[in-house]
Amino acid sequence: MKTVVNGTDLSSAVAKVSKAISNRTTNPVLECIKLSVKGDLLTLTATDMEIAIETSIRAETFMEGETLVLGKLFSEFVKKLEEEDQVELNMTGDDGRLKIVYSSSEVYLSCLSADEFPSINKEMREKAFSILQKDFKDVIGKTVFCCSQDESRPILKGALLNVKDNVLTCVALDGFRLALAKKNLRNSSSDFKVIVPARALNEITRLLDRDEEEITFISEDNVLLIEVDGTTFTTRLLEGEFINYNQIIPTEFLSTVRVSRQAFLNSLERATVVAKEMKNIIKLDVKENYINVQASSESGNVNENVLSSLEGKDISIAFNAKFLSDALKGAGDEFVNIYLNGSISPCVIKPYSGEEYLYLILPIRIAA
Amino acid sequence: MKTVVNGTDLSSAVAKVSKAISNRTTNPVLECIKLSVKGDLLTLTATDMEIAIETSIRAETFMEGETLVLGKLFSEFVKKLEEEDQVELNMTGDDGRLKIVYSSSEVYLSCLSADEFPSINKEMREKAFSILQKDFKDVIGKTVFCCSQDESRPILKGALLNVKDNVLTCVALDGFRLALAKKNLRNSSSDFKVIVPARALNEITRLLDRDEEEITFISEDNVLLIEVDGTTFTTRLLEGEFINYNQIIPTEFLSTVRVSRQAFLNSLERATVVAKEMKNIIKLDVKENYINVQASSESGNVNENVLSSLEGKDISIAFNAKFLSDALKGAGDEFVNIYLNGSISPCVIKPYSGEEYLYLILPIRIAA
Repeated sequence: MKTVVNGTDLSSAVAKVSKAISNRTTNPVLECIKLSVKGDLLTLTATDMEIAIETSIRAETFMEGETLVLGKLFSEFVKKLEEEDQVELNMTGDDGRLKIVYSSSEVYLSCLSADEFPSINKEMREKAFSILQKDFKDVIGKTVFCCSQDESRPILKGALLNVKDNVLTCVALDGFRLALAKKNLRNSSSDFKVIVPARALNEITRLLDRDEEEITFISEDNVLLIEVDGTTFTTRLLEGEFINYNQIIPTEFLSTVRVSRQAFLNSLERATVVAKEMKNIIKLDVKENYINVQASSESGNVNENVLSSLEGKDISIAFNAKFLSDALKGAGDEFVNIYLNGSISPCVIKPYSGEEYLYLILPIRIAA
Repeated sequence: MKTVVNGTDLSSAVAKVSKAISNRTTNPVLECIKLSVKGDLLTLTATDMEIAIETSIRAETFMEGETLVLGKLFSEFVKKLEEEDQVELNMTGDDGRLKIVYSSSEVYLSCLSADEFPSINKEMREKAFSILQKDFKDVIGKTVFCCSQDESRPILKGALLNVKDNVLTCVALDGFRLALAKKNLRNSSSDFKVIVPARALNEITRLLDRDEEEITFISEDNVLLIEVDGTTFTTRLLEGEFINYNQIIPTEFLSTVRVSRQAFLNSLERATVVAKEMKNIIKLDVKENYINVQASSESGNVNENVLSSLEGKDISIAFNAKFLSDALKGAGDEFVNIYLNGSISPCVIKPYSGEEYLYLILPIRIAA
């Protein structure tokens, strides 16, 4: 293998695939980036067996071939070659090392054989759906933070992507709270249902930098694939049945409160300063014209009233303040509606206008 | 104590004094901020017994008094009050807690008695010297990183500030390297010599935000004091004799190399990628027209030539690459001169023009 590439191209390609390098593995090839030279392209690939990223750059090739370089080391090194117009990658020596030549300097890096590197399936046929990049980013940003971090129920470490009647619904939940976001698709799509690891969804949104263009999801054999600007991203899907979330979300409520999202958020943040040492527990007394926010711990007490308007019964209820703040941040809109059924029933939060987003939070039972 | 202040004023004053709150102490009052209301001023003070910071803001006072609040908690809380025009601080209740009132809300924070808080001596008389703020920041930025982190020789955790013949010389060293910077003072000053903890010097530079104005250092009884915009900063000085640094710095050399500072720095940074796993050791072969930079480890080899011009003998020498990089970054100027006396003698680095800065680095002995 011998080829010459541009330093900036190389650095940005390595930065892209590096996201898929495994950090904790017993298999050294998963810590590597595969370099593969064919025709006038250098292709870089990395995978941790869950996600895989592959991208190609223009190359002036003298000899085709492939090898594996240590991902972290190679990535750090090429960052310092961005100013080099011409970087030669050369494996023609007989010492099994990659020679990198630039200006009048040379560097030798240890390599592994590319034979053991897992192959990435890119020949998928089943088209899933297409969506505007900005819509996808919006949906993911507003839901995925509710995915579970807990290994004990692996299915909850992913979010459900469900396409039905040309609407994408994304749902994430962790046993304490749930987030749901919907978007209409512009092009008609067949129905489709997958559970995608939260990490993969976050990495995908980082690849999307053209808000007004569409991104197409393709799927086969429990793998989901997207292609963006010559970069291919694949991720394994989570197997199993997702929670039947429709059963969890109540549709009738005793009380509905309308409140300024920002004013409520500011108040919760102040209460959190004190509540932090008490597992973030805050108490709300929902009255006709205000929500009374209370937090107390050894270091102090917060007691604030936030103007609001209530339809229905007064309710006293306690929450993890972080879950409430996260939901308010996600909901957008100037005002939100909070729907309640008493102090031990789940609460639902929606933006005042529109039905695109919904958050559900379980309250905390506290002694009266 | 009862007074009303502006939320933004309060938040910025608390942010300033917070730097002096102790993080690890067995004495709880050192984790506190002292609030002291007198006339139309609220004065905030914090100290960890090494440094102390005190600042005052305008207040509408109804009752004078003083108290201690937990620094970290208070600081986090008042950050969220920046939008409040009027924040009332009230200790008139009989429960020994500070009541904070804003909008229609109230918060109670636990307090300690101010009696135990150490007093800060601000009545110093011995004027030390005055220097342009930008000059002081420059001198500190170029030297203090060489102070030792090691507790075993406490005196090296500080830098020497020495005023003689209206020149300030600042020296920092850690047993492996030394940095020296000089500045002419515009106003005549008497001779003066103190050793100031590195941390205090860094905090002082953070307080200086008017480059073209002078800052005056005042000293008495082993304490150094400055005043900036109504904020008083004091620090204890380190006691003992500083190393006789003039004895360490050689004045005659076998070889002098001139090299582009940026080109050499770039090369060192690439070599460091490989050298990192070998304690940052890099080897230099100084030849007539270039410096050959070499680093090698299990993961690879770097071998670069950086154009340079030599007066004197060829020399092979090894260094900790980080120490060399730090010195080159500090030296400024387009070119630097590197002065050498062989492979086991200290090396001196100076900017090509001017004698204001000097770095000395001990080489590493390696097998040939």
